[in-house]
Amino acid sequence: MSTELSPRERLLLTTETMLRESGMAGTGIKEVVARSGSPIGSLYHYFPGGKTQLVVEALGRHAERFPRLAERFLDGSKSAATALRAWFDTAADEFESRGADKGCAVGAVSLDVRATDHEIRRACEVAFDDWISTIADRLPLRTERDRRSFATATVAAFEGAFVLARATKSGEPFRHAGRWLSLALVAQTTPKSERKPTSRKRR
Amino acid sequence: MSTELSPRERLLLTTETMLRESGMAGTGIKEVVARSGSPIGSLYHYFPGGKTQLVVEALGRHAERFPRLAERFLDGSKSAATALRAWFDTAADEFESRGADKGCAVGAVSLDVRATDHEIRRACEVAFDDWISTIADRLPLRTERDRRSFATATVAAFEGAFVLARATKSGEPFRHAGRWLSLALVAQTTPKSERKPTSRKRR
Repeated sequence: MSTELSPRERLLLTTETMLRESGMAGTGIKEVVARSGSPIGSLYHYFPGGKTQLVVEALGRHAERFPRLAERFLDGSKSAATALRAWFDTAADEFESRGADKGCAVGAVSLDVRATDHEIRRACEVAFDDWISTIADRLPLRTERDRRSFATATVAAFEGAFVLARATKSGEPFRHAGRWLSLALVAQTTPKSERKPTSRKRR
Repeated sequence: MSTELSPRERLLLTTETMLRESGMAGTGIKEVVARSGSPIGSLYHYFPGGKTQLVVEALGRHAERFPRLAERFLDGSKSAATALRAWFDTAADEFESRGADKGCAVGAVSLDVRATDHEIRRACEVAFDDWISTIADRLPLRTERDRRSFATATVAAFEGAFVLARATKSGEPFRHAGRWLSLALVAQTTPKSERKPTSRKRR
């Protein structure tokens, strides 16, 4: 790890990487200190709140990239359906090119956080909510309710694609998820006059 | 835990529950023994392969319910799109009624398994593949490639819904994911003659 980073930065970056590799329970404080090359006493100096503070801050840093990605892809230069598919295809390529072993830190922590760790679960909830809101604001659907519903399905598909991608060591699940989500968005934005009554009823 | 179960069954059931609550790294051998009420020496007696054997068997038991669920819902008595939505809605209800704190054991392990634990990662891969195949066989799509693609997106959506449901302590993400997947399936099974060229092109 680059020694140009401050000890505090190194601790955060190492925690983020370990959360992506093996969740919260798999992120041991001693290993964070060792892998970051930090002096042993530095952790409680920089993070007096201990592991909880370290994980909450690392989650916050990891999570802030997702709304930015949503903004970058859903920038209005092409249809939202096309943009969404490009986003998932890019995620597939990146997962594969980066070693096919890193998931989403927020997803991993959401699945292994203890029920009593309210502060950490809440950090996951806030991260997902920010991400959903950013996507929802950029969707060509009629109601806010529909936009949030589709954005929630998009984030779920993205997180689940990480799950399958980790299990199969392949980015393909992102490509499949993006393809069908994109199709659903196209279907919903098709003018009503061209929809069959059965599909209209199901919306 | 019921004492009518054998010690071996109790160990497996406790492991499955703990994997659903806090993943593999969060499932400590000592806690499994304590929560299952098993004698301390029983774990290596019944599972000479230790934690790896215990986790692989618990994952296998947990995973075998998913193809059965796919068979139960996608039984041909209603359209696949309707069945799929009912399945996700049921999952939402069950997540909430069971305390809103348990995810999918295979999903949690996929996100926290160490890159060197090949046997356990492989168990996750096999579980997802069985599940995808069972769904794919029951879809009204023209090609095997499309059926597997949609089935993969379905399993990803289901696993991702667990991630968001755990973070938000709500089953809603399942309902949103099911709604849009179902819409994509309706759109794809709509006769070609009624599709717009743009949406046909995007398929």
